Amino acid sequence: MSEIKKVVLAYSGGLDTSVILKWLQTTYDCEVVTFTADLGQGEELEPARKKAEMLGIKPENIFIEDLREDFVRDYVFPMFRANAVYEGVYLLGTSIARPLIAKRQIEIARETGADAVCHGATGKGNDQVRFELGYYALNPDIHVISPWREWDLTSRTRLIDFAEQHQIPIAKDKRGEAPFSVDANLLHISAEGKVLEDPWDAPEEYVFSRSVSPEDAPDKATVITVDFEKGDPVAVDGEALSPAALLTRLNQLAGDNGIGRLDLVENRFVGMKSRGVYETPGGTILLTAHRAMESITLDRGAAHLKDELMPRYAELLYNGFWFSPEREMLQALIDKSQDKVNGQVRMKLYKGNVIVEGRQSKDSLYSMEHVTFEEDSVYDQRDAAGFIKLNALRLRLLKRQHN
Amino acid sequence: MSEIKKVVLAYSGGLDTSVILKWLQTTYDCEVVTFTADLGQGEELEPARKKAEMLGIKPENIFIEDLREDFVRDYVFPMFRANAVYEGVYLLGTSIARPLIAKRQIEIARETGADAVCHGATGKGNDQVRFELGYYALNPDIHVISPWREWDLTSRTRLIDFAEQHQIPIAKDKRGEAPFSVDANLLHISAEGKVLEDPWDAPEEYVFSRSVSPEDAPDKATVITVDFEKGDPVAVDGEALSPAALLTRLNQLAGDNGIGRLDLVENRFVGMKSRGVYETPGGTILLTAHRAMESITLDRGAAHLKDELMPRYAELLYNGFWFSPEREMLQALIDKSQDKVNGQVRMKLYKGNVIVEGRQSKDSLYSMEHVTFEEDSVYDQRDAAGFIKLNALRLRLLKRQHN
Amino acid sequence: MSEIKKVVLAYSGGLDTSVILKWLQTTYDCEVVTFTADLGQGEELEPARKKAEMLGIKPENIFIEDLREDFVRDYVFPMFRANAVYEGVYLLGTSIARPLIAKRQIEIARETGADAVCHGATGKGNDQVRFELGYYALNPDIHVISPWREWDLTSRTRLIDFAEQHQIPIAKDKRGEAPFSVDANLLHISAEGKVLEDPWDAPEEYVFSRSVSPEDAPDKATVITVDFEKGDPVAVDGEALSPAALLTRLNQLAGDNGIGRLDLVENRFVGMKSRGVYETPGGTILLTAHRAMESITLDRGAAHLKDELMPRYAELLYNGFWFSPEREMLQALIDKSQDKVNGQVRMKLYKGNVIVEGRQSKDSLYSMEHVTFEEDSVYDQRDAAGFIKLNALRLRLLKRQHN
Amino acid sequence: MSEIKKVVLAYSGGLDTSVILKWLQTTYDCEVVTFTADLGQGEELEPARKKAEMLGIKPENIFIEDLREDFVRDYVFPMFRANAVYEGVYLLGTSIARPLIAKRQIEIARETGADAVCHGATGKGNDQVRFELGYYALNPDIHVISPWREWDLTSRTRLIDFAEQHQIPIAKDKRGEAPFSVDANLLHISAEGKVLEDPWDAPEEYVFSRSVSPEDAPDKATVITVDFEKGDPVAVDGEALSPAALLTRLNQLAGDNGIGRLDLVENRFVGMKSRGVYETPGGTILLTAHRAMESITLDRGAAHLKDELMPRYAELLYNGFWFSPEREMLQALIDKSQDKVNGQVRMKLYKGNVIVEGRQSKDSLYSMEHVTFEEDSVYDQRDAAGFIKLNALRLRLLKRQHN
Repeated sequence: MSEIKKVVLAYSGGLDTSVILKWLQTTYDCEVVTFTADLGQGEELEPARKKAEMLGIKPENIFIEDLREDFVRDYVFPMFRANAVYEGVYLLGTSIARPLIAKRQIEIARETGADAVCHGATGKGNDQVRFELGYYALNPDIHVISPWREWDLTSRTRLIDFAEQHQIPIAKDKRGEAPFSVDANLLHISAEGKVLEDPWDAPEEYVFSRSVSPEDAPDKATVITVDFEKGDPVAVDGEALSPAALLTRLNQLAGDNGIGRLDLVENRFVGMKSRGVYETPGGTILLTAHRAMESITLDRGAAHLKDELMPRYAELLYNGFWFSPEREMLQALIDKSQDKVNGQVRMKLYKGNVIVEGRQSKDSLYSMEHVTFEEDSVYDQRDAAGFIKLNALRLRLLKRQHN
Repeated sequence: MSEIKKVVLAYSGGLDTSVILKWLQTTYDCEVVTFTADLGQGEELEPARKKAEMLGIKPENIFIEDLREDFVRDYVFPMFRANAVYEGVYLLGTSIARPLIAKRQIEIARETGADAVCHGATGKGNDQVRFELGYYALNPDIHVISPWREWDLTSRTRLIDFAEQHQIPIAKDKRGEAPFSVDANLLHISAEGKVLEDPWDAPEEYVFSRSVSPEDAPDKATVITVDFEKGDPVAVDGEALSPAALLTRLNQLAGDNGIGRLDLVENRFVGMKSRGVYETPGGTILLTAHRAMESITLDRGAAHLKDELMPRYAELLYNGFWFSPEREMLQALIDKSQDKVNGQVRMKLYKGNVIVEGRQSKDSLYSMEHVTFEEDSVYDQRDAAGFIKLNALRLRLLKRQHN
Repeated sequence: MSEIKKVVLAYSGGLDTSVILKWLQTTYDCEVVTFTADLGQGEELEPARKKAEMLGIKPENIFIEDLREDFVRDYVFPMFRANAVYEGVYLLGTSIARPLIAKRQIEIARETGADAVCHGATGKGNDQVRFELGYYALNPDIHVISPWREWDLTSRTRLIDFAEQHQIPIAKDKRGEAPFSVDANLLHISAEGKVLEDPWDAPEEYVFSRSVSPEDAPDKATVITVDFEKGDPVAVDGEALSPAALLTRLNQLAGDNGIGRLDLVENRFVGMKSRGVYETPGGTILLTAHRAMESITLDRGAAHLKDELMPRYAELLYNGFWFSPEREMLQALIDKSQDKVNGQVRMKLYKGNVIVEGRQSKDSLYSMEHVTFEEDSVYDQRDAAGFIKLNALRLRLLKRQHN
Repeated sequence: MSEIKKVVLAYSGGLDTSVILKWLQTTYDCEVVTFTADLGQGEELEPARKKAEMLGIKPENIFIEDLREDFVRDYVFPMFRANAVYEGVYLLGTSIARPLIAKRQIEIARETGADAVCHGATGKGNDQVRFELGYYALNPDIHVISPWREWDLTSRTRLIDFAEQHQIPIAKDKRGEAPFSVDANLLHISAEGKVLEDPWDAPEEYVFSRSVSPEDAPDKATVITVDFEKGDPVAVDGEALSPAALLTRLNQLAGDNGIGRLDLVENRFVGMKSRGVYETPGGTILLTAHRAMESITLDRGAAHLKDELMPRYAELLYNGFWFSPEREMLQALIDKSQDKVNGQVRMKLYKGNVIVEGRQSKDSLYSMEHVTFEEDSVYDQRDAAGFIKLNALRLRLLKRQHN
């Protein structure tokens, strides 16, 4: 057991991280600093403060922060510039939140003179990797504590016993196993485990919390516009909004219209497949809107290069390599392309569908004049003959020789 | 003007290709062979025979073929093994039909001793490229005639005049300009041009012909299953179907449920952007189903490699390079991965949505035993510590040195 | 024939471009502006001025510029940051010079109010593409004249006749066909055509002009050092040098030691294969040195991403897409990685070989402490077990299931 | 400590693996099967048999096999079809030998009913990963023993003590630490560690064993030819040779001429940089020859796709993923391209240089007729105008709009 003096714990205020808090105190005999962040998960933060105090944390060691704007502006939006989807469909809602939490923990460790950080992710998932790669990338000498890989509280019963033994309050509904585990932030909410483990069974309606089902959504479509500047959304229906406010607005609009659900079997970085059920309502609108905005403002060469590199970028995020040189290099490439991704997209939201109805931009590269069938100054149809001939040349030589 | 003896014309029986037919006869003074294929575009073929005869084509020079099974089995399905989408969303319905037509034209040219082939694609689009790259790749010495780039019938009026002058029957609704141009086959129907040219305007409902709108689709969901063998769909709702029959069935199911519409501004290979409105009902189900099938049967390494190469594959198809070494190499890579993509996917079709409800396979790599939180023989949670530490090592050394 | 008022000609002062100059005057009846650049091709520029004057060009229309520093700093060095090689071996010496010439021609056209530009590249090569893509990318409305594709001076005899007819002086050795054609700049000299066309025959010694053969190089090795800052070379043997001076120095050192020859059959963008014989003496040292410098200063993730994207980057340059969004995006990615590529590389030059003897850097990521077999604080050998186990997990599940 | 009944040990007969053998017997109290393979490392195998017998291994448990032909045919040649180099320069000589050893160990385990395998790679290197990924991929339930990560013989002194204690003969020169560690097979020999750890110091001449230095190589060049069939070399100087015989011949020719040395700082999969000194004499010729052969027989599309995917392929091999779906998929893609890579390459070997002098093939795509400047039936120079115009179109529209 390493000697630890002070540890910064990612603390939600819930039962599990409260048990971790107490376990750290008893196991490492060290000072604990709690860090509780509002990333839009939709929970009050003040109870976490009270609970931390109750568990003996000094007031100056309790950090509670509203990071919603940082989260959306510095993590969610850069990711959407890339049109990132993992394995064709997943919008990376969990992955993108981890780097910011890791970063703040490391910063708070520096401010408070802590020599360790601790997270509550389990030993089978991706999040442990994401947290810890973030920690190490930002402070190579930090000590990392991962209770779920270390302790012996390996069953619900033992954990509850430990909590009772240490006077940790236990909400009634926390005594038994949860039917599935949840992660939430402003971009998404995920559910996995237990009742969701058989991939042949569809998730029950009670699993969802941010969206109505398409069936229950209104029979009448909602039409909205989203404005973009340099690749980032800046307004909804003409109203300028801060990043977090904008995503909140889109979440509401999408959730009301049954948009953004995903039921997926995915490949974890740690090597096994797992089944996740996700709701990313606003993000689903955003992806469609951003692609539509790019469709008229981005050059083909830029667009195709982005498309080819996107899976790699998404994989890096999923695997926890936000703070890596290669992610930063790809981000530089992506951001370089977004200068003229300005304009407006109009969409119809209807029972699970996001339907692009129109896109316009002062920087549009779509030129009605050039797609018409009339003669114009730029495109001479006879050029096509030469274009085809030279593109075909190697294929002709190949066929002649290799038959 | 080159000396042409005999030309194989891709002939639909419609006004435009009838004009081309006559123009070939008068301009090149050559024998014309017509080739009319049923790729599932939904038109009767026999009228084309009559019309060809009427325009003086010898019976032995009239080729009419039902290629629907070849089309779906040898072109559509291989493409769907790749999960190919162009620019993030387009299912390549037009692109994938051209190679087969080109191939048959070249084969018929060989059979009939023709020295030339001719298509009716315009000089601004992608199809001219796709046809001609196909022709040249399969017969480097073939002569290619592209009337729209060569003739002076550059306005509707002139074309109609030419038709009248040569006694080509003109349907009443063909006298004026069509409000948009159409391409259709069993996989999709596309609309572009004229009334669709302003990308800020949504397409009117009359543009669509293979699907009801999501709003008009039934209020009750339809649940279906699709079975796969080696990456290809083989049955719907448990009923084994031939490739074309299967796609026809999915088209019906999807079209009835408002599925498969796409309104897109895309980048043409010839250099400008264009706006297309597509319906790919069955294909939309197929893409979702295939990805879901792969999600439990494909290894992560295989899946990610496919995802990274998909945009390149899709671009090759879009640009007309089906008959190229690089497409064949990519196909070899893709096909190599599909051996165990077997099983069944259950989906709910509802007002534009294709919702995966379940997937199962005797070859499933998803293992409920390994995702549970209990100890198992393969996954030891402590392994994660080492995994993370070594993945982090380079990042730590980097931070230490480069700060 | 378009109406041209004034044209900026890339003018070498040689026979061919002098003929073009006169042909422009007589064919287009337009004013000609000559642009002659010193890119290190090793020829005097003042004779070009005299010749232009003699051919009737007004003094204010004669532009003669030493662009060697711009060339090396803004084109050659950025390319070497990417370790760019085309088709595994070619250092892109011709390709990289075209964008700068095109850029200056367009700028001079703007300054002089010219409406056209003209180059002397032939109709079968890559250079016409590189020039013209550059022109169009920088001025979409410019008129481009490509005499070799337009005129009827298609044989040497006709060209000489035209020259005589127009009192253009003809050097004695220019009357006949050259045994091969040459392109030169500070980075390289190329030879192709005629006597080099059979790829089974080795080039004769007289083809080479910038390097001795390895056999004729000194029997004693020369050891040199090159210093790098942010990925660019800044000093040789400890002496700080400007970009052009540095490349000149390396050319001398390499050429003297028989370094930098390449005999290649390559794939042209216009569709056929061609055989080129290249000398890139200094560049050959530079590539080796830069890779060695990166080997201790670049993180693995950054290095591998660069390696994977390099072929694409090289292809873009070869094909003439320097001024394209995708090249600029890739450059942004590459440049992002070079901040810490600082230090010194020591090499032995010996009869065609560039042998890395040592590399050192204050930013080195190579840590002797971590590669030794002793325990250390960062690397615990037991971590390797977990690392391997989790990397193997998917393969084990795969084997179990798919056998 | 797991219960082990029988273990298959990769046994060289040297001191270290003899200590491992004895350590296995004493630690696991299990039966040991020794597997000693001739991969061309240049050592007698019979002494390994005697030593194994002396250490108490039953004759039926001693496996000694000459795998040189399997190694070159099934591993080295497929890799060279890809032109694989790691980090721009390394020919992967160590990496490529591990999969075959792992495969045979697993096969022998099956034959002998062993439940475990064991290798002698250290805990800091790549080889442990390569061996173990191979083991697990081929038998997911095998037990893997990695002594260097498990035991306490962590210093040379302890290891020697253990050897003495167990009557393991110790050669005089094995008492002290070796000045560097070595790995050898028919493709290469590597040296790393100890005296080579400072990357600023050049390796001393005594480190090299398979090649003379360029300085010591003959003053007269040697000219050779290599013939290829379907991408694999089949003859040297016209003499047909088996794979292993061919590589042996090339090793001799190259080594005599100072060819194939490499001094590199590379990035290990386990996260740190290390310095390796390699000799790959025959392989160096082979890479050059194969590329030259492809240069006239491979289509551009095929060649460029291979080039773009090569770094990924090389990384997979380096990291130990030979037996992975993604490597097999890439191999399928690569092999698909090699059907017409037939012909002959002529090279000059001279003091470290491999200089291509000529290439010829009945399947050559290089056509002297098409590169000449005369008119021909396939290439019309005017086609270039259209080709350029359409390639430029998007760049022009971009400049017009985005300036």
